[in-house]
Amino acid sequence: MATSRWTAAPARTASPRRRGAVLERAILDAALEQLSTVGWRGLTMEGVAAGARTGKAAVYRRWPSKEDLVADALQAGLPRLEKAPDLGSVRQDLLALCRQARDAMYSRPGFALRAVIHECDPTQAERFRAVIFEGVVEPTVKLLREVITRGIRRGEVRSDADNGYVLDAVPAMMMYRAKVCGSEWSDVDLEEMIDQLMLPLLRPRGV
Amino acid sequence: MATSRWTAAPARTASPRRRGAVLERAILDAALEQLSTVGWRGLTMEGVAAGARTGKAAVYRRWPSKEDLVADALQAGLPRLEKAPDLGSVRQDLLALCRQARDAMYSRPGFALRAVIHECDPTQAERFRAVIFEGVVEPTVKLLREVITRGIRRGEVRSDADNGYVLDAVPAMMMYRAKVCGSEWSDVDLEEMIDQLMLPLLRPRGV
Repeated sequence: MATSRWTAAPARTASPRRRGAVLERAILDAALEQLSTVGWRGLTMEGVAAGARTGKAAVYRRWPSKEDLVADALQAGLPRLEKAPDLGSVRQDLLALCRQARDAMYSRPGFALRAVIHECDPTQAERFRAVIFEGVVEPTVKLLREVITRGIRRGEVRSDADNGYVLDAVPAMMMYRAKVCGSEWSDVDLEEMIDQLMLPLLRPRGV
Repeated sequence: MATSRWTAAPARTASPRRRGAVLERAILDAALEQLSTVGWRGLTMEGVAAGARTGKAAVYRRWPSKEDLVADALQAGLPRLEKAPDLGSVRQDLLALCRQARDAMYSRPGFALRAVIHECDPTQAERFRAVIFEGVVEPTVKLLREVITRGIRRGEVRSDADNGYVLDAVPAMMMYRAKVCGSEWSDVDLEEMIDQLMLPLLRPRGV
């Protein structure tokens, strides 16, 4: 599935005149495509150069190693979840946020990111942890926190719910069931997760 | 870390007379060792044969493919969590169970299992899903369910807490933080997870 989904990307035309930002963008796009199809281990500088219709030297001139290239490609390509939904209830907000996260997960950069998370050995993973943290984990947690603190203000959510384990519960469950159960997180799955996991976890005391 | 931890395994002596169950056990052990050090992609039938001090033919005679070998090695080597702790409170029981799970996670078969979960592509992963489900997920969920239903009977846990998302919350969080945050799940981390995630999630209504 991951293999075929992105091969029909917009046709690239060879242009010997591309340079600077345009060429850079093409190389970063090609790196994301390689990651999402052949994975971290399958990605080669040659493959990226071929994907971007340029020479290996043009890649190496900018990025001395595969690690540097991939770090920049992820940073440039990661989907930005920038606005927390504000639909009037914590249930609706969580649901909308989870749908956005699911769509990001199954986007090309999402596949690329998971290739890096899952395939890298601990030393390599260390190299990307900051990128992943700043690019994905922190922004997601920030939006979840916004939704939850708004719920606390409305009295819908217990006052001590704004903590790391509560904020990680959705990303953890989405990753786990995708990996271990092969879940693709339909809208119905997301609703069940909110109703069976998040709402009981957030419920105010005495209710 | 994963690379050096298991290389000092008990010294193996070459024995041309090993056969049947003994040789089979040596091959399965060698497969687990390869998985936990060089991972799924790094594992070769040659490497396993060398690790078991036997010939490639002896391996192929029993297992026609790497997939078959790895499935059997996991099935034979996975740590068994067979008894749910019964210490008088859901907090103590969960803590004891999580410690067992953490120790299993950082055992050699645990590393091997995660190599398979994380490195396999979706088609290969399908091949191992049943092994992982029957060998790890189901037994763990069974013990969690025992602890939780006992808590329901004691009135410590809300009566509708025995559902899939609640039962998956611990495995999901342990996998997520190990992968994404590099957590090694100290006893203190486990206590925080129980106190901030599981106890609020299990709390009876009206309390």
